[in-house]
Amino acid sequence: MSVATLDRPEITAAEPRPGSAGRSTPVSTGPDSRQRPDRGVRSRLRELALLPPQPGFVSLAGGLPAPELIPRAAYARALGDVLADDPAAMQYGPPHEPLRERIVDLMRERGIDCDPRQVLLTSGAQQALSLAAQLLMAPGADVLTEEHVYAGLRQALLPHRPSFLTVRTDPGAGMDVDGVRALLARGARPAFIYAMADTHNPCGVRLGRERRRELVALARRFGVPVVEDDTYGLLRYDGGWLPALRALDPEWVVYAGSFSKILAPALRLGWLVLPPRLAAGAGVLKEAADLECSALTQRAVARLLRHGFAGHLDRVRAGYRRRRDAMLAALRDHFPEGARWTRPPGGFFAWVELPDGLDADRVCDEALAEARVAVVPGSVFAVAAGAPANRLRLSFSSAAPDDIRAAVARLGRLLHRRLRHD
Amino acid sequence: MSVATLDRPEITAAEPRPGSAGRSTPVSTGPDSRQRPDRGVRSRLRELALLPPQPGFVSLAGGLPAPELIPRAAYARALGDVLADDPAAMQYGPPHEPLRERIVDLMRERGIDCDPRQVLLTSGAQQALSLAAQLLMAPGADVLTEEHVYAGLRQALLPHRPSFLTVRTDPGAGMDVDGVRALLARGARPAFIYAMADTHNPCGVRLGRERRRELVALARRFGVPVVEDDTYGLLRYDGGWLPALRALDPEWVVYAGSFSKILAPALRLGWLVLPPRLAAGAGVLKEAADLECSALTQRAVARLLRHGFAGHLDRVRAGYRRRRDAMLAALRDHFPEGARWTRPPGGFFAWVELPDGLDADRVCDEALAEARVAVVPGSVFAVAAGAPANRLRLSFSSAAPDDIRAAVARLGRLLHRRLRHD
Repeated sequence: MSVATLDRPEITAAEPRPGSAGRSTPVSTGPDSRQRPDRGVRSRLRELALLPPQPGFVSLAGGLPAPELIPRAAYARALGDVLADDPAAMQYGPPHEPLRERIVDLMRERGIDCDPRQVLLTSGAQQALSLAAQLLMAPGADVLTEEHVYAGLRQALLPHRPSFLTVRTDPGAGMDVDGVRALLARGARPAFIYAMADTHNPCGVRLGRERRRELVALARRFGVPVVEDDTYGLLRYDGGWLPALRALDPEWVVYAGSFSKILAPALRLGWLVLPPRLAAGAGVLKEAADLECSALTQRAVARLLRHGFAGHLDRVRAGYRRRRDAMLAALRDHFPEGARWTRPPGGFFAWVELPDGLDADRVCDEALAEARVAVVPGSVFAVAAGAPANRLRLSFSSAAPDDIRAAVARLGRLLHRRLRHD
Repeated sequence: MSVATLDRPEITAAEPRPGSAGRSTPVSTGPDSRQRPDRGVRSRLRELALLPPQPGFVSLAGGLPAPELIPRAAYARALGDVLADDPAAMQYGPPHEPLRERIVDLMRERGIDCDPRQVLLTSGAQQALSLAAQLLMAPGADVLTEEHVYAGLRQALLPHRPSFLTVRTDPGAGMDVDGVRALLARGARPAFIYAMADTHNPCGVRLGRERRRELVALARRFGVPVVEDDTYGLLRYDGGWLPALRALDPEWVVYAGSFSKILAPALRLGWLVLPPRLAAGAGVLKEAADLECSALTQRAVARLLRHGFAGHLDRVRAGYRRRRDAMLAALRDHFPEGARWTRPPGGFFAWVELPDGLDADRVCDEALAEARVAVVPGSVFAVAAGAPANRLRLSFSSAAPDDIRAAVARLGRLLHRRLRHD
């Protein structure tokens, strides 16, 4: 078993600090915030992530899979076969059972033992999170998260006008679970705890084994469910792996998975693994939201999963491992003294702390304009005001290794210049 | 121009009656109704609609398109071409502009002049309605509808715990717009008015031309938006057509469209045409719900719309006209004295009033068990308690004309038996 390690000194103290737990300012408070959603966050990320390709420009911004790791030809064949064979493929229909069974199989790779009836198909992990929030939240409820989270989570929660309780992220071992305990012991009863154990977006860190046990024990003891976002859980690059939180507690963990990173985003296919008591209610919420997932996509993906999927996963992991290693080597070679970063054991992202005094938002703007590299400032992921202003998320998922090296070198030169002139 | 006419005496008085407008009991009131959604409604409909095919069994229950009117081979070619040509097809991406432009073209067939920036792509009309409700409703708000509505609307509204204000449906001219006026004049200010002008599900009726003008004038005068569900708007069988409500007022009508009935449900693709002031906010709600619609589906459907779509629509209309005519002839031949029904000028459904004393829920159960025909009782669509118990929805969309005739004959024999024994 391995845990995430840092290439350089840790970003924050590894010891949990009681002071690191606290209540943030709510994301939305106005009576008409429903009409004016939290636009700056996710849409800015989407703008950066979806910049059109241009010669000489490299994007380290989005969570897009590498084009050559998407099995386009195999999916085209699967679609053709389904459309030729299966008259139900273009209609409305109940969930395609073979797909739910394949997902149950896949869940064993995460240490999870579940039943097809606990699997709810969703339009990607984003809808999985949106439905989990609908299931678990009353309007205005608290939600407990780390200080930096997947930006889409905040969007998914927005209709419920949440208040956020936050704990720090230890760059070596992930979520500050002692901080979670302190909050719960002081009486906090959030609607749920949002956790991303393997591997955290944006922080590029894996939650340690002991912390996993502690977190689910706290969930059970205090009766507070965990929503586990495992979008990147099957993408691990260093041999060892840890069981998902859901593997440790089938009653108190609502698990969200996705095919977007291991197959393709355009499938718009993800899933929830639900505690039995929540499964029926969640199905009705899915109907209310958009009736069902595409019968055609369900059938074609079930075929992909039946034939050669283990080999596909191996290729995908090898491809991202190469990219990650290229990025880490380039960071070592080109980034200035005083910069630090995580060494992600999986997922798509490295999380960088810039040297003191550098403002990440400004660096991102300059990187785009001068270095022709897109990266995302940490502020996009910060739940609460007052988060440190010098964090950057670098994605190694979609660019080719040579482009990653070139882009990180250009970013490094930009940072050196900024440090000289400031 | 033609309006829907009845084959037999009208179901209810054609003259609007002030007494027909009233406040219904709310659908959900309990503090924990969020955890126990309105399951009976939509899921019962889905169960009936999605019964698996069996020899000798005929479904007149669902809103499923006829299998032979779904352009499977053309869609398979479009998917293959897109996957071969377009590297963006499997990724995340912004809305595919050629698709939004084709939708703008299609909207001209409904008399609507709009801009691609007002078109928000959704996962079918169900998500369009769900997003419209999120945009327009505060928790617990009133919504104004007819007494019988598309069951998925109630599901889409459920998270907002609506109260319903209802008006009658005139089987000759549709929604009782005088009833709407009376409610608004008395001070009602619902979050929106839900209307289905072409052709109503479940009531199989088209809203008259004058009533359309009156309805949008009321919306503007009282500042209450109309949500127009135009899922069936392009499916008309009798020559003449009327402009959509959105064609009469681009500011106060939020329009919902769908490819499910004119192409295929498994595309999970629909759209909103939004007033300019709501377009940006709606885009963020879509991101929050599930990020985006499949880039692959968007591209493949755009290709279908570019080549030969007018001919496809003609074939589809002719196919459903044949089915409708088979059903209407069989109703005349086999249904007992005292039964009445609408003559739908479009859409998928005829709406039947059974002779006095027959309970539609019981008839549906017996039809399934004895006549081996699935139909849907009107209670599934009733917004308020106290709706008449003798209404049935018969779908002519998915069964072949011969099967429709045979099924209606079996239903007729069942009804005759029930009338003799009661």
